Parts: sequence; C-alpha cells; structure tokens
Amino acid sequence: MSTAKLYSTYKTKMQKIADVKYASAVLQWDQETYLPPKGNDFRGQQIATLSEIAHQLFTDKTMGELLEELSLCEDLTSSEKRNIVLSKEDYERNIKLSAAFVRQLSETVNQSYHAWAKARKENSFALFEQPLNELIQLKRQEADMLGYEQHPYNALMNDYDKGLTVSKVDILFVELKTPLLNLLDSLKNKKSIDNSFLFQEFKKDNQWEFGLEILKRIGFDLEAGRQDISLHPFTTNFSSKDVRVTTRIDEHDFSNMTWSCLHEGGHALYEQGLPADQYGLPLGEYCSLSIHESQSRLWENCIGRGLPFWQHNFKLLTNSFPKQLKDINIEKFYKGINSVSPSLIRTEADELTYHFHVMIRYEIEKMLIEGSLPTKDIPACWNEMYQKYLGIKVPDDNRGCLQDIHWSHGSFGYFATYSLGSLYAAQLYSTIEKKYPAVSEDLTNGKINSIQDWLKKEIYCNGRYYSSEELCEKATGETLQSSYFINYATKKFSEIYL
Amino acid sequence: MSTAKLYSTYKTKMQKIADVKYASAVLQWDQETYLPPKGNDFRGQQIATLSEIAHQLFTDKTMGELLEELSLCEDLTSSEKRNIVLSKEDYERNIKLSAAFVRQLSETVNQSYHAWAKARKENSFALFEQPLNELIQLKRQEADMLGYEQHPYNALMNDYDKGLTVSKVDILFVELKTPLLNLLDSLKNKKSIDNSFLFQEFKKDNQWEFGLEILKRIGFDLEAGRQDISLHPFTTNFSSKDVRVTTRIDEHDFSNMTWSCLHEGGHALYEQGLPADQYGLPLGEYCSLSIHESQSRLWENCIGRGLPFWQHNFKLLTNSFPKQLKDINIEKFYKGINSVSPSLIRTEADELTYHFHVMIRYEIEKMLIEGSLPTKDIPACWNEMYQKYLGIKVPDDNRGCLQDIHWSHGSFGYFATYSLGSLYAAQLYSTIEKKYPAVSEDLTNGKINSIQDWLKKEIYCNGRYYSSEELCEKATGETLQSSYFINYATKKFSEIYL
Repeated sequence: MSTAKLYSTYKTKMQKIADVKYASAVLQWDQETYLPPKGNDFRGQQIATLSEIAHQLFTDKTMGELLEELSLCEDLTSSEKRNIVLSKEDYERNIKLSAAFVRQLSETVNQSYHAWAKARKENSFALFEQPLNELIQLKRQEADMLGYEQHPYNALMNDYDKGLTVSKVDILFVELKTPLLNLLDSLKNKKSIDNSFLFQEFKKDNQWEFGLEILKRIGFDLEAGRQDISLHPFTTNFSSKDVRVTTRIDEHDFSNMTWSCLHEGGHALYEQGLPADQYGLPLGEYCSLSIHESQSRLWENCIGRGLPFWQHNFKLLTNSFPKQLKDINIEKFYKGINSVSPSLIRTEADELTYHFHVMIRYEIEKMLIEGSLPTKDIPACWNEMYQKYLGIKVPDDNRGCLQDIHWSHGSFGYFATYSLGSLYAAQLYSTIEKKYPAVSEDLTNGKINSIQDWLKKEIYCNGRYYSSEELCEKATGETLQSSYFINYATKKFSEIYL
Repeated sequence: MSTAKLYSTYKTKMQKIADVKYASAVLQWDQETYLPPKGNDFRGQQIATLSEIAHQLFTDKTMGELLEELSLCEDLTSSEKRNIVLSKEDYERNIKLSAAFVRQLSETVNQSYHAWAKARKENSFALFEQPLNELIQLKRQEADMLGYEQHPYNALMNDYDKGLTVSKVDILFVELKTPLLNLLDSLKNKKSIDNSFLFQEFKKDNQWEFGLEILKRIGFDLEAGRQDISLHPFTTNFSSKDVRVTTRIDEHDFSNMTWSCLHEGGHALYEQGLPADQYGLPLGEYCSLSIHESQSRLWENCIGRGLPFWQHNFKLLTNSFPKQLKDINIEKFYKGINSVSPSLIRTEADELTYHFHVMIRYEIEKMLIEGSLPTKDIPACWNEMYQKYLGIKVPDDNRGCLQDIHWSHGSFGYFATYSLGSLYAAQLYSTIEKKYPAVSEDLTNGKINSIQDWLKKEIYCNGRYYSSEELCEKATGETLQSSYFINYATKKFSEIYL
C-alpha cells in the first residue's frame, strides 16, 4: 500500500474513534445539563459502552500494525510524521489497559459520581467513601498497568500533561510557596478591600445576558458553540466547530458567573482555535491540560481581572446593573474583584491563595495513590492541611473535601495542572506584553486582535505538536519559570493593596 | 455453555448495541434542539459512525451463531424465546445490508437533511432535488437488498410496521376514502365553525407552562423525561427512563403547541411505559410505528380533542389565558378545536382531511420507489394531487412538498402508519369505552387511571411481543377495522356540525 493510502486509512480509523469519543462527550455534556434524574443509570451504561468501544477500536492489533508500518514511512510531511509518533505513543499507553478495565473504570466513575452527588446533598463524606475508595484502588491499578518511574502518581499525571512528574511539580511548588506566603503576609497589614458590592442581588437573566456578551467580546464564536447552565461550570467540545461552555449563576454573587464565563471562555477559544482539518488526529487536539488551563487563566486573570479589560467593559457592566453599581467606580471595582483572603472553596479563591488549594489536593492525591493515606482519613487530613496552609477551619465536608467533582470522575493527577496553568499564563502574557507593548492600551479600547493572533499562532495552531515544555519554550523563549507568576502577582497585588 | 449463560451473553451484546443506538439518538436530539450551526458536518459524521458501529456489532457473525444456538434451546421462558425469534428476524434482515451501505445511507441522510433545511429557507424544491434523488436511489437499492414480494415499497414499509404491505394499505385507504369524502361533503353544507379565537396572541412563556402542565396531567413523568423546543416536534428516547419530547410555539396559533404536546405526550407515555428490564431487547421496544402513532392519536384526538378532557382542563386554560378566552365557553372551544377544512399543511390538518395528506404522500412514495415518478416531478405531482384530493391550490414548495422532514431523513414507507395510527386509535378507544363505560365521566373529573391501566396492560407492557395486527386483535378482539374510525368520525363531526 502507498504511504498516502496508509495514512488515509489511519486518518479514517482515527476519525471514527474520535466520533465515538465525541459522542461520549455529548452524552456527558447532556448528563450535566439536561438529563432527567431517572435517566442516570442507563446513561452511565451508555457512556461506559462508548468508552469501551473507543478503547477497543484504538487498541486493535490492526491499528498497532498500521502505526508500526507508518512509522517506517519516510515520505510523510512533518505534521503527518508527528501525528504518527503521537498516536504510536498513545497506542503503546492504551494497550496496557484492557477494554474490560476501561469499562469497569467508566462504570465505577458513574457510581462514584452519583455517590458524590448524594454525599453533597447530605453533606457527608461517609456516603462517598466506599465508591471513592473503589475508584482509588482502580486508579492505583491503572498506574501499575501503565508503569512509571519513581512515583505511581507520575503515571496518572502523565494523562493530563505528558512528562509531568512529582519531582517537577514539587520543585515548582517549593519555588511558589515561600514568595506567596510572604506576599500574603505583607497584604495582611494593608488596608482591607471592600468587595461587598459583588454580593448584592444580580438577577439571573441579566447575569446570563452579560455573561454571553462577555463571551462574544473575547471572541467566542456562538455559531460554533453555545453556553448552558450546569452545577459545575465546564468546557467540552465535540469538534472545534462545536465547543460548549457551561456556567452557574448565583443571584447573590456576581463574580461567580462572570469569571467562570471568562475562564471557560478561555478554554473554549483554545478548542475553537484548534485546526479543524486535523479532526480526530493528535494535531487536532490540545497540547496538555496545563496549557489548556493557561488559556483559561490568561482570560480569567491576566486579562479578565486586569484594569485595561474593565476599562473597556465597565460601561456594559454598569448598563447591565445600574442600581447595584451606582456608587462603584472602576478603581473600586478593580480592587474589589482582586481582594485577597484565604477561603474554603477553590473555585472562588483569589489568584494567590488559589495555589494552596491546589497544593493541598496534590499532596493528598499523592498519598492516596501511593497508598499512604487511607480513603477514610481524607476529611481529617484535608481539614488539617487547610488549617496549616490557609489558617482556616473547615466547617463541614461540603466546604471541605467534597467540594470538587474531580475525584468522583476519577480525575487523579489533574489538580497540579491548575497551578501550572496559572504559571504558564503569566509567562505567556508577559511575552505578549513584550511583543505588543500596546496590548494594555488596546484592551482599554476593546481591541483583542493582537492577543488573538499571537495565541492562534503560538498555541492554538500547534495542536499537540509540542509538549507543554516545548510549546512554552518555543512561544516564550524559556522553559516554565515560576518567577513570571511571582513577579506578576507581587507587582499587581502590591499596587492594589497600598 | 448453559442456556442461562448463552442468554446472558446475548443480553449483554444487545444492550451494548442499544447503548450505541441510544447514543446516536442523543446526538440526533441535540442536533434538532441545541447544536450550533457550524457543528453540523462533524455531527453528521459522528452519527454515521455510530450507525455503522451498531450495525457492525449486530451483524457480526458471532451474533448470528449465538442467535442460532439460542433458537434451539428449549429451556427459555416464553419472553426469552420471543426475544430470540425477533432478534433472529432482525438479524436476517440486517445482514442483507453492508456496514458500508448503512454508513453511506447515514451520510446521505445528513447531506439531504441540510439540503432540505436550505431548500426550506429558499422555498425552493430545486435545492433539495439532487440529494433527495440520491437518497431515493439508495432506498430503492435498500429495498432490493432486503428483498420483497409484489412491491419494493413493501420492503421499506416493513421497517416501520412488520408485515404491512401495499395491498393491505390500498384496501384500507379505499375503505376510508369514500365515507370520508361523503362526510366532508355533508359538512360543507353546514354552518361553518368559528375558530378565530385560537389565532390571537398567546405569549410563548405562558404556552410553554400550559403545555408542560398538560403533559403532567396526562401522566408524563418529568423525572424520566423532558420537553424542549425544536423546529419540528418529535419524541425520542434513550431508555424508558429518559424520554424526550419537543414542541414548537407559534405565538399566533395556540393549537400548534397544545396538540403537539398531546400528540408527542402520547408517544412519550408509550416509551415511558415500555418494560425497563428489557432494555436493549425486542420486548423493551415498541410494537410498530402504527401502534406508536395510535398512542399519539389517542391522546391528541380521541381524548385531547374530546369534550370530557376539556371539561376538566378548561379551567386551567382560561386561567392561563383569561384575556384571550374571556368570550369563549367550553362548547365554543370544543367546536373551534374540531373545525374541519381542507388545508395545506399536514401537521395542522383536522382529523378528517388529515388522511388525504397521508394518502398523497403514500401514492407519491410508491411511485418514487417503484421508479415511475422522477424526483424532479415531485412538486408537479404533489400540487396536482392536492388539487384532486383536497381541492386546494399549493402556492409554493414550502407549503407543498417541502413541508415534511421525513424524506430528508430517508424515511420512506413511514407515512401510511400515520393513518393506520388513527384507525388503531379509534378501535382501541372504542374498546376502552366498552370496558370502562365511565371513562368519559372520569375524564371530566381529571381521572385517567382506567385508561392508563388498560394501555399499560394491553399495549405498553407487551413491547414487541406481538405484531401490530396480533396486538390489535388481542386488545380489541378484532383485527384492524376501518369502520371504528369512520363511525367515530361520523358521530363526532355530525354532532359538532349541526
């Protein structure tokens, strides 16, 4: 068979697998947005079947042979070559897991998700413990099957950011911890910031309209995506032409919806920017979850909690909520949306204390996966660490270890990418500022095309061509440096807290 | 392997196939309700892949061998036996079509659906002609592959109602035509009915609330289903625990939404009533489209356009729309919702002229499938038949041959089941009235449990155990008789038109 024919066979196979995976994503999106409650059990089964089929199709012997043959072809373009290399790596990784194991995992996730939802309702970790424990044991098995060096947690982190290891994250967190603690300490002595205006009554419909308009303003294409409501905001996609974000609306907390729109919007712009002609192939996929998170953090924080962005959008805001904001000028607003204080809920945390929320989960996950922390001891360990890192007492499980959905989804190894995302975002944004010195001024005028162009060229277009580290180095000239975030945070918050 | 083991293998395989089919149904539901426009192409591909996979799984040689082996087992329960017999029939039928053909069909349907939508926008059949013609040629091929006696159209009708033939339908339509024409003729000389009150302004939100309440009142379980908006109302389901109806709202035509809710609600009650423990197996499926339509017509017409139903629900109606209905009493309302007059649009037709809309489509489809009518001649033929049967001139394609979605979906052989559904509904409802003489009185008091119990026992619970004809005979003591509908219609409309 000619190389062209081989490659076309590979492409067709991969696209069919993508079809099945995206179908599963539609079912999951529907589960979080519209599924009637009694439909849950069959839905879990349907998703499990699709996972199993996608896994079977991809790990089929013929796929291995095809990839082997293609990897020896010399007349492939560099993009084609890269697709083959990445698919081969994925293949080697996937064949370590049996279809039965993949199905068992998917089914256990479904049970565990519902147990978590129930535990949330009852505010009791005890109701979640047993299915969570089953899931953790499966994830430990998975780590063993996949194989790892040094720490089993590496095998799991690898799923979200290839090449990420405990030793790398440990170093970054050490670098981050002291400067952050010092900064937080220095802010304690400053005059506290009033952000009470954010917690007035903001009508649901008005928030919804405002959020949609913000999404449009940052470039989200509503012809190739949509927004819905879900309990926990997320972004998903079924091709780069169908990217869906969700948000939640708290009528007594304006910030909840707004920065969730900006956050998910950042994720969504990345997905909409991925090359559609690479549908189903590695180069049509995002680089890593760390880089994905850099895109959400960039829009949520570097841009969306910055003064220039609001200088342009403040008018829309005050037009949408004239009563609530009648005594608030833009400086007050800017300070209010950047007030810092240790809190219980990760997703509501400020840019600084956020990292401690992540570090706590990271430490706990490492222990769970290495087997040194029994599942039943999670709440005690969690509460102790919140006391230690953030100096706050956790009043109950809902505001403690039950707050995040991730464990119920079996997403172990995920959390570190949140902090890494912030670090990458700071470094990327600093590069953008260097390249386009007028970027702040542009933002005050509502112009975002230089940012869009740069992200498109340096991030979106590359798909999975480069690893996180390579992409970062290519785009910014350096590997990931925590100093960018530390400098960004120190400068920003020293100016805000006078 | 023991029979129990064999049967359990069969059940697992069938449930996985159902998972894939229902996943495809979720994707199609989403396509009609929420899909952003640019997502269409990839969505078509995803649905095609799922069709192909479901077909491959079901037509796999191992499935054939398993069914063969199980069909020889003597220690199966009668339900189990019936599942095997039906699955074997399905298998024999399905292996006649290759997976590539199934995929090609699915892809052509997607193209043809979008061409139809575009043609609707431009009000021009010409834009639909070429993809429709491709689809018709594929359906003709399909008929040949499936095999048939007497008429190729039989092969296609068989998909919707096993055993239905051109000769059977021809006889029923002949029986129906003359009495209906006579009845229509007699009404022409009567005083015309004023139904202008239905065409005032009815706010969207109020209609939505009213429709949902009507759905609840007829027993639709909103914990196991939901309602959304789509261009064309339909019912779909992803298990009997997740049944979805859609409706459309015309703010200047109250009847549009209301009887679509009752119609789709009738379909939905059937799906919610199917035995959940037979998920994925024939006995968990509906009997036929004719019987399915009997359920929608029963609630839409026999009950939902009847006086007793509205005697109970009229208060809800006038509370929802006090201004619009202030001069309308229940008699006026009842007459208004049953006014008869030839019209252009099938879904808006009254109970009598409706059948002519169906007959026209049926005649055209027969000719298309036997090859005696070229696709390009559809509009001329359509318009001529509307003149002949209904005495009206078709002003444009949108109000003519472009009005229905069915052909764009490749659903040839479907339309006759609409008329059959009405005939079955009349016969079933007559049986209910005989068995429960108090049924009208119960309805005026909002009690529907005798109807529900009877339908559950005689229709829902049986799944696909019986054919349409057997089910009808078992439930009513007779095979399908057009006289029930003719008597029902003659009595009802002679009383309304005095």
